Amino acid sequence: MIESYLQGRWRAGTGEGRPMFDAVTGEEIDRLSTDGLDLAGAAAYARATGGPALRDLSFHQRASLLKALAGHLREHREELYALSARTGATLGDSKFDVDGGIGVLQAYASKGKRELPAGSVLVEGDVEPLSKDGSFLAQHVLTPLRGVAVQVNAYNFPCWGPLEKLAPALLAGVPTIIKPATPTAFLTAGLVRLVVDSGLLPEGTVQFVSGSTGDLFDHLTEQDLVSFTGSASTARQLRTHPNLSARAVRFTAEADSLNCSILGPDAVPGTPEFDLYVKQLVAEMTVKAGQKCTAIRRAFVPAEHQDAVAEAVAERLRKVVVGNPANPDVRMGALAGLEQREEVRRSLKALGGRVLFGSPDQVDVVDADAERGAFLSPVLLAAEPDSAAVHEVEAFGPVSSLVPYTSTEQVIELAARGQGSLAGSVVTGDADFAREVVLGVAPWHGRLLVLDQADAKSSTGHGSPMPQLVHGGPGRAGGGEEMGGIRGVKHHMQRTAVQGSPEMLTAITGRWVPGSTRTVTDVHPFRKHLEELRVGDTVVGGPRRVTLEDVEHFAEFTGDTFYAHMDAEAAAQNPFFGERVAHGYLVVSFAAGLFVDPAPGPVLANFGVDSLRFLTPVKFDDELTITLTAKQITPRDTAAYGEVRWDADVTNQHGDSVARYDVLTLVAKQS
Amino acid sequence: MIESYLQGRWRAGTGEGRPMFDAVTGEEIDRLSTDGLDLAGAAAYARATGGPALRDLSFHQRASLLKALAGHLREHREELYALSARTGATLGDSKFDVDGGIGVLQAYASKGKRELPAGSVLVEGDVEPLSKDGSFLAQHVLTPLRGVAVQVNAYNFPCWGPLEKLAPALLAGVPTIIKPATPTAFLTAGLVRLVVDSGLLPEGTVQFVSGSTGDLFDHLTEQDLVSFTGSASTARQLRTHPNLSARAVRFTAEADSLNCSILGPDAVPGTPEFDLYVKQLVAEMTVKAGQKCTAIRRAFVPAEHQDAVAEAVAERLRKVVVGNPANPDVRMGALAGLEQREEVRRSLKALGGRVLFGSPDQVDVVDADAERGAFLSPVLLAAEPDSAAVHEVEAFGPVSSLVPYTSTEQVIELAARGQGSLAGSVVTGDADFAREVVLGVAPWHGRLLVLDQADAKSSTGHGSPMPQLVHGGPGRAGGGEEMGGIRGVKHHMQRTAVQGSPEMLTAITGRWVPGSTRTVTDVHPFRKHLEELRVGDTVVGGPRRVTLEDVEHFAEFTGDTFYAHMDAEAAAQNPFFGERVAHGYLVVSFAAGLFVDPAPGPVLANFGVDSLRFLTPVKFDDELTITLTAKQITPRDTAAYGEVRWDADVTNQHGDSVARYDVLTLVAKQS
Repeated sequence: MIESYLQGRWRAGTGEGRPMFDAVTGEEIDRLSTDGLDLAGAAAYARATGGPALRDLSFHQRASLLKALAGHLREHREELYALSARTGATLGDSKFDVDGGIGVLQAYASKGKRELPAGSVLVEGDVEPLSKDGSFLAQHVLTPLRGVAVQVNAYNFPCWGPLEKLAPALLAGVPTIIKPATPTAFLTAGLVRLVVDSGLLPEGTVQFVSGSTGDLFDHLTEQDLVSFTGSASTARQLRTHPNLSARAVRFTAEADSLNCSILGPDAVPGTPEFDLYVKQLVAEMTVKAGQKCTAIRRAFVPAEHQDAVAEAVAERLRKVVVGNPANPDVRMGALAGLEQREEVRRSLKALGGRVLFGSPDQVDVVDADAERGAFLSPVLLAAEPDSAAVHEVEAFGPVSSLVPYTSTEQVIELAARGQGSLAGSVVTGDADFAREVVLGVAPWHGRLLVLDQADAKSSTGHGSPMPQLVHGGPGRAGGGEEMGGIRGVKHHMQRTAVQGSPEMLTAITGRWVPGSTRTVTDVHPFRKHLEELRVGDTVVGGPRRVTLEDVEHFAEFTGDTFYAHMDAEAAAQNPFFGERVAHGYLVVSFAAGLFVDPAPGPVLANFGVDSLRFLTPVKFDDELTITLTAKQITPRDTAAYGEVRWDADVTNQHGDSVARYDVLTLVAKQS
Repeated sequence: MIESYLQGRWRAGTGEGRPMFDAVTGEEIDRLSTDGLDLAGAAAYARATGGPALRDLSFHQRASLLKALAGHLREHREELYALSARTGATLGDSKFDVDGGIGVLQAYASKGKRELPAGSVLVEGDVEPLSKDGSFLAQHVLTPLRGVAVQVNAYNFPCWGPLEKLAPALLAGVPTIIKPATPTAFLTAGLVRLVVDSGLLPEGTVQFVSGSTGDLFDHLTEQDLVSFTGSASTARQLRTHPNLSARAVRFTAEADSLNCSILGPDAVPGTPEFDLYVKQLVAEMTVKAGQKCTAIRRAFVPAEHQDAVAEAVAERLRKVVVGNPANPDVRMGALAGLEQREEVRRSLKALGGRVLFGSPDQVDVVDADAERGAFLSPVLLAAEPDSAAVHEVEAFGPVSSLVPYTSTEQVIELAARGQGSLAGSVVTGDADFAREVVLGVAPWHGRLLVLDQADAKSSTGHGSPMPQLVHGGPGRAGGGEEMGGIRGVKHHMQRTAVQGSPEMLTAITGRWVPGSTRTVTDVHPFRKHLEELRVGDTVVGGPRRVTLEDVEHFAEFTGDTFYAHMDAEAAAQNPFFGERVAHGYLVVSFAAGLFVDPAPGPVLANFGVDSLRFLTPVKFDDELTITLTAKQITPRDTAAYGEVRWDADVTNQHGDSVARYDVLTLVAKQS
């Protein structure tokens, strides 16, 4: 019996349990049961131990954990490949699953360090002014949910699935309970064992349910969330669970869908795009034996090229060797199990359609027993565009249907008949066609790939969700959204609009908010190390008069002789100036001259400027004052310096802001 | 019988209908029925007419419609005030509802013009690189859902409710079906009649259901969405509707909740914050007779000040004149109806608690019959912190409970016992207390207000949702999120990750993506009017050598004598430079000199710079080239010019980027 990892220990359920079988040999591998285990207790444990432990860490520290975990799994991936082979996966399939999952951890580690702030409160969007005098403002902040993320995974990605759910949850500061699907749970168990044994994650942040979820859903609260990947019917059942709906528990679903791939009319036989289309379709049919929720089920091709596509696909499929994934010649392994094969055969019957390649019932296999193992031939069907079944019935295996279309409008309408898909692709070299189709079908898709010669070599492919990009789709695809970079982190956090005075918002967010205290100290802030610097520390420089001579000199020196600076008559015609004005770049250059402390010190470099706006023209003999205030301090765990964002406000002798911007510097740590 | 507005006509339902009553006199006003009306047809009509009509408009055009509609309603608001009085509302209450709703339209009109692009595709976030060579990238885009927004409103805000839901939907390009709550539907009907009669909105964009939704929900699709405001129990019912869950129809709920207001320990009697707390609590109890889903139900006060608060609140409540809102002395009108009053009385019984002020059964009223009209006295209760009822039972009227607390940890825990709230407030002058409480209770709140002396005058108050800020809360509050500025627009759109080559992404998004074609034409792009300019138009300037003399001269001229530019020995110690380097501001100044076309022309001004990053140090005698490419062109409907965002790439003689940024200009239209 595979044990569950709950409340800090591996625990065996009671009873007979549910068996798992080797997809290649049909042998029983092991059993699953959670009978007698306290799953509600596991959720409470996560909330009481894992949650606080994660929330004690900063985003950057959590990102480091993900990075370390990725490294640990990478070292041990051969163990996972070995288990994975028993799910019917070839080595390529296993890498897709295992390395893909590790890649998600790495991507979130990197995004976490680059895109998230120091500390653990995520400030979102601009400060929203709520009063004219600036005394009342708001800022949206996101804080981690105080609950547990219950992650229900599908059988087809036993490693990638749990890891793509774990990474954003952990980065957000939310502990996880992993629930695998039965057929391949032994592989997920192996993964979780590596995670637990690594000792990298704080206790209580990852638990593992080896079997049914029992009464777990009855005990979830408004601070918990459920992320589900699997069939549409199970999604519907969970979505309407009485406790989840009563407590408005966050629920996101990602269900397999009738994804389409569209061949452009320009991509006639003989073009590179025609070949790319065929190659991609065959890959999507055979990788993971077509058991990808993103795989192409509906292949839309111009009617006049349907036969040519069918022929070219069949030619490639003929070369696909099916059999025991341990044999290096094998290109396609087994389905996850015999039940899954029966399900695909039922779907093939429901689909109907003319068989262009393969057979639902017969397949030649290498090094294996075609009946005891869950083997199936790739099957290419032909369907009429108005067939209801082709837009409704999914055969979750190495199965696609070719569907002819005759106009752009028609193919957009056909794509929509899938009622919501995770992924779609358009294979075309015609940018106008790509634009029309992509914008036409986008409302039904979570992700769309445009494939052509230009990106063929670097494309990650139709079927690959990417951690940077949203994964999920409307309607039939479950209506959920996962990953998408930091978006996926935010799904595990509560967004709160905080209203208050500038001073209060500064105290709460840790970022200096315009209007709150500026602290002018005896020491120039450029002489302070990162640890000494405080948000609000300010230097004021100037005033400096900007003369006609300055402007003419700057124009001559830089070559920027734009008429607004140099030609009084033309400048008078300009709707914004009315007379000659100083260069914006002169203003910011003078400002730097006024705020800089020239001697070597903790400020190492000015690496950029953000959101510079020239607000009031600077006229000759205006006097400029610069006020520079430390706005945000971001230490880097792994560097001898951190980033400091400064609010820069250049004002004229009337007190009007003439330029406002953020100056970005690197500032050394003391030690 | 109040008619429904469906498929372009006002239509009367059959049957007896449901009556609505005057809240002040108890008289029947009118009846509602949708019996015999084709509501599924209305949804189909919206998708077939209103949707395409809105999608034909740009964001800016839709924003103009909202602005015009706001103006029209403003002109006619007296008509709405008159109807509103019959809901029991005082003139102040009516303004809160009517003017508040108009304010949302205005805010969205303004945000739409300022924050949304020209055209109708919303590009979100950065371009995501997916390959090292830059040939494969992704961009998230949002496109309007192709369905209809069914908006189910609550009885307490018959104008604001429909308008806060309409504004973001319309701006997104999604048509609306408005379903009011029965007791005050006559006012919403009046509002919709004004909207329809204005003739401003395209046909099919707004429809109105005067009565039950019948079988409407059975006919919604994956492209439709339902926004619900009302009771938690109805929210639960709708959320689990078989068709909505089967098709993953987007569903958002906003339910009234047990909002809290926390008095800080610093705000002892005699402090301004103490008075602010008392004043706010009385306002929240009496405005709209406490029928606000954001009103304060749980007033947490330091135990030692509970009596002082009770006394001060009672003193103010004594002065609240209850009665016919037509009488100018009246400060609090009636509840929405007798049924609502019965409901509040039932809740008061369930709440228990000691009555500190008022009576559930007795009230003195002015100019009205206290029994025939739905009048109720403000009721202030005292509750123990561990009372289950005070955290669970909501009396949706002029009712609050005072709850004592003894520590910061305790009050955070008590706030969370509401299981999710729309709004909370902390009244304190102590920034540390504010920070601890706000971050502690944020996961349970959609909005939090920190009230103190500094923002007291400008604060919009505990109970006022703002269009710029998210409105909604977790758990008990429904788990939804509305408004929040452009966030609310995005809720009506599908987010799609589009992957492809730079060229394809440029074609699809209409924004120039790095890596796609730069078109260097004979004519300098600064000589092109907005209509002539194309995304990709490019000017290349340089090379220009940066000499030691240039750097020393610039240092002297600007005063920026930072050691990295001036002191070879110190610069050698700098971890990033290793030798003396040119000023970043010198680089961008020279770049401007290289790209500017000096003569008067369509480019009117450089109004800013975004995302400037200095990527490679510029050493002496490096030669700089600038490449400036039109990246995004944003015409302004109402101005003689538009904005052009340019990609600026300054490279050295090795082809390395030394600085990369966006230059923002205003460019005149031809005509």
